[in-house]
Amino acid sequence: MRVYFPQSIIMIAAIHNMLLSNNLNIEFLTTQLAITQNFFDMKTTVLFSLLLMGLFGLGAAYPQQNASKDKQMLRKMYDFHLGNDQSYENLRYLSTQIGGRLSGSPQAAAAVEWARQTLEQLNLDTVYLQPVMVPYWVRGTAEEARIVSGFYGTQAVNVCALGGSIATPAWGLSAQVIEIKHLADLDKLDKKAVQGKIVFLNQPMDDLEHDTFDAYSHCSGNRYKGAPAAARLGAVAFVIRSLTTAIDEFPHTGGMAYEEGTTRIPAVAIATRDAELLSGILSQDPALRLYLRTSCQNLPDALSYNVIGELRGSQKPEEIVMVGGHLDAWDNGQGAHDDGAGVVQSIDVMRCFKALNLRPKHTLRCVLFMNEENGARGAREYARLARERNEKHQLALESDRGAFVPRGFSLDHTDSLLLPKRVARLNSWSPLFEPYQVHLFKSGFSGVDVNFLKDNGDMLSGYIPDSQRYFDYHHTANDTFDKINRRELSLGSATMAALAYLVDEHGW
Amino acid sequence: MRVYFPQSIIMIAAIHNMLLSNNLNIEFLTTQLAITQNFFDMKTTVLFSLLLMGLFGLGAAYPQQNASKDKQMLRKMYDFHLGNDQSYENLRYLSTQIGGRLSGSPQAAAAVEWARQTLEQLNLDTVYLQPVMVPYWVRGTAEEARIVSGFYGTQAVNVCALGGSIATPAWGLSAQVIEIKHLADLDKLDKKAVQGKIVFLNQPMDDLEHDTFDAYSHCSGNRYKGAPAAARLGAVAFVIRSLTTAIDEFPHTGGMAYEEGTTRIPAVAIATRDAELLSGILSQDPALRLYLRTSCQNLPDALSYNVIGELRGSQKPEEIVMVGGHLDAWDNGQGAHDDGAGVVQSIDVMRCFKALNLRPKHTLRCVLFMNEENGARGAREYARLARERNEKHQLALESDRGAFVPRGFSLDHTDSLLLPKRVARLNSWSPLFEPYQVHLFKSGFSGVDVNFLKDNGDMLSGYIPDSQRYFDYHHTANDTFDKINRRELSLGSATMAALAYLVDEHGW
Repeated sequence: MRVYFPQSIIMIAAIHNMLLSNNLNIEFLTTQLAITQNFFDMKTTVLFSLLLMGLFGLGAAYPQQNASKDKQMLRKMYDFHLGNDQSYENLRYLSTQIGGRLSGSPQAAAAVEWARQTLEQLNLDTVYLQPVMVPYWVRGTAEEARIVSGFYGTQAVNVCALGGSIATPAWGLSAQVIEIKHLADLDKLDKKAVQGKIVFLNQPMDDLEHDTFDAYSHCSGNRYKGAPAAARLGAVAFVIRSLTTAIDEFPHTGGMAYEEGTTRIPAVAIATRDAELLSGILSQDPALRLYLRTSCQNLPDALSYNVIGELRGSQKPEEIVMVGGHLDAWDNGQGAHDDGAGVVQSIDVMRCFKALNLRPKHTLRCVLFMNEENGARGAREYARLARERNEKHQLALESDRGAFVPRGFSLDHTDSLLLPKRVARLNSWSPLFEPYQVHLFKSGFSGVDVNFLKDNGDMLSGYIPDSQRYFDYHHTANDTFDKINRRELSLGSATMAALAYLVDEHGW
Repeated sequence: MRVYFPQSIIMIAAIHNMLLSNNLNIEFLTTQLAITQNFFDMKTTVLFSLLLMGLFGLGAAYPQQNASKDKQMLRKMYDFHLGNDQSYENLRYLSTQIGGRLSGSPQAAAAVEWARQTLEQLNLDTVYLQPVMVPYWVRGTAEEARIVSGFYGTQAVNVCALGGSIATPAWGLSAQVIEIKHLADLDKLDKKAVQGKIVFLNQPMDDLEHDTFDAYSHCSGNRYKGAPAAARLGAVAFVIRSLTTAIDEFPHTGGMAYEEGTTRIPAVAIATRDAELLSGILSQDPALRLYLRTSCQNLPDALSYNVIGELRGSQKPEEIVMVGGHLDAWDNGQGAHDDGAGVVQSIDVMRCFKALNLRPKHTLRCVLFMNEENGARGAREYARLARERNEKHQLALESDRGAFVPRGFSLDHTDSLLLPKRVARLNSWSPLFEPYQVHLFKSGFSGVDVNFLKDNGDMLSGYIPDSQRYFDYHHTANDTFDKINRRELSLGSATMAALAYLVDEHGW
């Protein structure tokens, strides 16, 4: 049976919101009740009044110790993180002194060693590395593209190879272009129309989606499977419009995959500005050619590591409260938002527990995953070992959505009956987060790395910062430290520490 | 009588939050009730269950036409603003082609003409200018400061004059420095300690305040009244640490005022980075001197204008729903966030009503105020004329907190009994804003310009975007167009349009 939300609940929620910020007096509430008559029918109002009185009668009897203690603890945590700049300085180092750090690269090894040293300095109970073999893809030095038109002349286009792609011939390749708006449009084309051409997928991310991750998720699959789909029809290369709602000059890289039995063709992304240019010129000169040159290659798998630090639980050490992000980052930028932020925030949660002298009941574990970007081998290995060791995660909280201002959390669990209960529980803590303008508590996909723990029956959570700016930087040369706001980064650490504390302290 | 919020209300709110995003089924709610037993005592749960059943029984009977129509209208408004970049391009022009535009300057005149033309292009019912005489202060070309120490040598310091300040002598001034942490510390000093010295107020903005405007409001008064307070003790100049939580190289200007009967001394701000440097060197060499040179001056008042555009109300044309921002901006930057954003958002609200073919019931008025930064003469004149014409504002909504992601609204009214009712009413609309992550509905100061309407008994509102980044840019050379995110700016326009629509459609 489907139900509609009654206006009286909205009203209760409205008053609830006010109660969170201050204790209000009864006269004030009575006034509020009076005005519901402007908007709601009288019958609702009367019943609502009765309900509210009932609630307040009870409310006075409810013991407030927990809420009050938790409120104070969260204040301490937010004060700790806002009041110092260690995570900001950590991120400065990781971004500007190490920089892009794709799996297998010397920079990834440097990031592992930096993370180990940084965790060691916190005097945790244990810090260790978890070995894992990772793919090793390198971009090489040459990366260029040009529109070549008999009418419009030659125009350079900002381009980057997609991670995992093979290179073009050393002298590049040149072919006519067939533009499609959706990958599914390929199904309507026959081989003759595509054979020997470059397939250009010019699908903009939907600007009307409020959450840019929703818009991204509608397109990101195309980046993975576009090249083999085009190759099956005989295309010689696959070009995707960069995945961002911004119109700018930055090409956005990202993972792609080939399929067994399908010819491997080069796959690249071009800047949105250039996608519009190419599309426009193509409409006037369908015979134009696109010249592409890339020099990327897939090297043999390399040894790398997840980096892990722990504070051992005082009551249930075998149960884990985990915070984490991923150490690897695309080579074309500094990986400041993606995911240097998640790394330093996760480290910062450990630092906060130490600084506030909090001994967790469960084992508090910081996991810095390797290889989220192009294989998630670190996350797979971590989940495999957790299964093998029978480790239960009370919480596996991932931060991999940038260092923007906190909005809330997602929760995810394989048990679809349990999940709404956990979301309700999370919502019951919302008053504690109200002073910090953290309002979003919902179910949903919680992150690439923690997702491998889903089959273990663990409780997954994704830290959700604001999404509006993320795809301005994601997977580009523009993802640099100067795009980080210190306060937003620190508020993220505090928000994660708060959830880790609440789950550790009260369980679900 | 003070009351505490009962946990059962939190639980209702939790479920309410979920109901907003989806319609949920009864089985799901029953499961949620079951788990309250983990956290709340049994008695609460049982009563809560009864209450909830009562609510749902009623809820089904409540007519949903209004909520559903409003929901669709807001979706249209957000789609309109997210789906085009006119306000972003308007702001690009205002910021980069006109730039800083302090009252009385040729740039301010250009901004008036640009605003008039831009409103004219919207085919509103009327566009007009409201003349007002404004202060005219110019910075001049010379602006420098140096720490001169016998031990540490000479070090340049980034400095800017405060708006309204007189200049130093043309050759500058040099004096010893007395550092204070709070302006009130001056009361503890006697004249001898201060006489002939430069007073240096080194009070950091409080990093631990979540809302940076709260932190700012604790300090901004010092900038206004610091110079006369120091002059009364015989100081020769007043230096303030810039009002920002960031530690960086940008000096932040802002208004200051002299007092009748007190010697006028130069007043400047130095960058936070340099405030820390000066304080440090001062602790080692109390005899150091600070060299200051500024060349600013106060010119005779100049004629300028508020720029106003209107859509005449179809039912109550004499009652006004107003949106506005201020046209003037400090001369050292581009005034992109402060307050180019508010200007283009207010224009955009008008454009939205036109584009969606909405004829407001009340007169919808866009007011672009002149001289918010150093006198608020435009706002005073606007309020005076409104009083004279007996105009009643159903809503006077100001956007002057930057182009960051929307968080909500404040409301303000001179009638402290009425205000909470209006806040409750605003909260009753919160479900409509839920899809856009707008959660903050509270009472509070709503803006410098609309505040002059408070005595008229009008309903004031402040649009509240996120505050974390604002003081990184405020009143500096760093307040430039490249700091604007198109989506965040557009979401602000949509959020303002939504409130204007709701108040116009339903009244209070």
